[in-house]
Amino acid sequence: MPTFPAITIDDVRDAQRLLAPVAVRTPLLENAVLNARAGRRVLLKAEGLQHTGSFKFRGAYNRLARIPEAQRSAGVVAWSSGNHAQGVAAAARLLGMPATIVMPADAPAIKRRNTEALGAVVVPYDRATEDREAIATALATARGAVLVPSYDDPFIMAGQGTAGLEILEQARDQGARVGQVLIPCGGGGLSSGIATAVKDGDPTIQIFPVEPAAFDDTARSLASGRREQVVPGGTSICDALMSPSPGALTFPILQALSAGGLTVTDDQVRDAVRFAFEVLKLVVEPGGAVALATVLAGTAPSSAADTIVVLSGANIDPALHAAIVTG
Amino acid sequence: MPTFPAITIDDVRDAQRLLAPVAVRTPLLENAVLNARAGRRVLLKAEGLQHTGSFKFRGAYNRLARIPEAQRSAGVVAWSSGNHAQGVAAAARLLGMPATIVMPADAPAIKRRNTEALGAVVVPYDRATEDREAIATALATARGAVLVPSYDDPFIMAGQGTAGLEILEQARDQGARVGQVLIPCGGGGLSSGIATAVKDGDPTIQIFPVEPAAFDDTARSLASGRREQVVPGGTSICDALMSPSPGALTFPILQALSAGGLTVTDDQVRDAVRFAFEVLKLVVEPGGAVALATVLAGTAPSSAADTIVVLSGANIDPALHAAIVTG
Repeated sequence: MPTFPAITIDDVRDAQRLLAPVAVRTPLLENAVLNARAGRRVLLKAEGLQHTGSFKFRGAYNRLARIPEAQRSAGVVAWSSGNHAQGVAAAARLLGMPATIVMPADAPAIKRRNTEALGAVVVPYDRATEDREAIATALATARGAVLVPSYDDPFIMAGQGTAGLEILEQARDQGARVGQVLIPCGGGGLSSGIATAVKDGDPTIQIFPVEPAAFDDTARSLASGRREQVVPGGTSICDALMSPSPGALTFPILQALSAGGLTVTDDQVRDAVRFAFEVLKLVVEPGGAVALATVLAGTAPSSAADTIVVLSGANIDPALHAAIVTG
Repeated sequence: MPTFPAITIDDVRDAQRLLAPVAVRTPLLENAVLNARAGRRVLLKAEGLQHTGSFKFRGAYNRLARIPEAQRSAGVVAWSSGNHAQGVAAAARLLGMPATIVMPADAPAIKRRNTEALGAVVVPYDRATEDREAIATALATARGAVLVPSYDDPFIMAGQGTAGLEILEQARDQGARVGQVLIPCGGGGLSSGIATAVKDGDPTIQIFPVEPAAFDDTARSLASGRREQVVPGGTSICDALMSPSPGALTFPILQALSAGGLTVTDDQVRDAVRFAFEVLKLVVEPGGAVALATVLAGTAPSSAADTIVVLSGANIDPALHAAIVTG
């Protein structure tokens, strides 16, 4: 049984110190057209501008940098549909470690290409018939390498939480009063990390993880009080958010700190990706756009103060982006 | 004969005070992949994140806000292929003034749509057979409205120059030492404004206006020492940079303060728009990408210190963007 909570604010602060010289302090952006459309002040944490195009670098670097020097030459192994892969590959390169990534054969081409460009070896698997965790564990065991989970790990969660510390600092500098934070949610690493940081700074701020409707395991888990699985057979264009269930470490934190889960449809996500292109002038991938989608669709809960929307990633295949913005 | 210089650093500082409560302080971004590819530290002034998707709001607001209250109800008239139109429309709306824009019938649809969405009336004209300046002047005279030039005006130039003040402040905050500033150049409003600001802060910084090869009037003018015209019949995908010659007010400043003009091909511009999408995760229009294009093509002059690239605008038709990123 894992201890609760798996991370505290001190872990997030430690991660912030470690990441300060290497991570991008991504901007907290604001757009007048979005504010007018939303009928409220919205601030956008643009994590697509992080190294490798998503927040994942934060957690990956915070995890890999904790591996003792003597163990580093054996490298790291991770499984990922893409963003965690790139985050791990970039962190490994910075730390001089070999990285192997087990990736679904149908992952977006841009994510595979970018992972390989960062020096990692990609091992493809069949999402329908093979077990990525088993493949990765076998590889790590054979090599004495460290297995790097994509969300259910205290260092990963604390690393992602550094985005939450920045949100509080930047919102204050920009004269905003944060009422709620809307966060794209797969396994819950980002939401649990940000929740830990934000709730420490101001316990009145409401945290909402946001998921694709067909992968609403966290929303249902928050409602039922136990870790639910996704309903098999569902589909989504949000390839970054297709986790089967909230994590053993992330869920208790979300249960304690979040105000409930939100969900969006693929059409709402497409509208958000298009809006980001046309109005915000930002590239955002489907999974990175789900929190924005709730604001644009009018399904985000009302808030007495300002709304923070996390745009968590920007790694979208050019053909899909083209189809969405011209659609 | 206009006095020289048409603007001084005090005009830019005045504009900065006026714009502070209304303009976006756009971020100065950095990307590790770009630095590695360029072999130097590059900082990107992301003016696509300004109101209306380009730097033009700065100058337009600084010009319109100087119109006395008693004259405001007669409104303003401008001619523009699109970005200046949107800047004027947004500034006019903020100040409660009617705005009429004379726009080429073949301007990008997104620019016309956005201008109308901001409450302006668009009057189309035929780029090949009609004189936009004559049409706009006649409209302004008939209404007693103020004609707002797109670059050759001291308040417009000073407003655009506020981006230069921000560049110096942000570069210092980010520990950069600026060696050169590369700036997309049409009529020279942005380059002359930024040059005025930057050279005041540090006279050793080199300023390079960048143009499409077929619209290299500023580069040739800087070489010859007098205001040259574009060679008729040339084409470019950079619709924002198709001015016929440098301005009477902008050119003397560029002549005094810039280190020479650079040019890029349409193919180099396409590569830069694609790179911005894939790596920087920013939407950039062709005319906004010309300075970045010189860095990616390896044609930017070498620099003993860091390079600033101005990404001046992001209003690109979805179909063109889709064609470029999937090309």
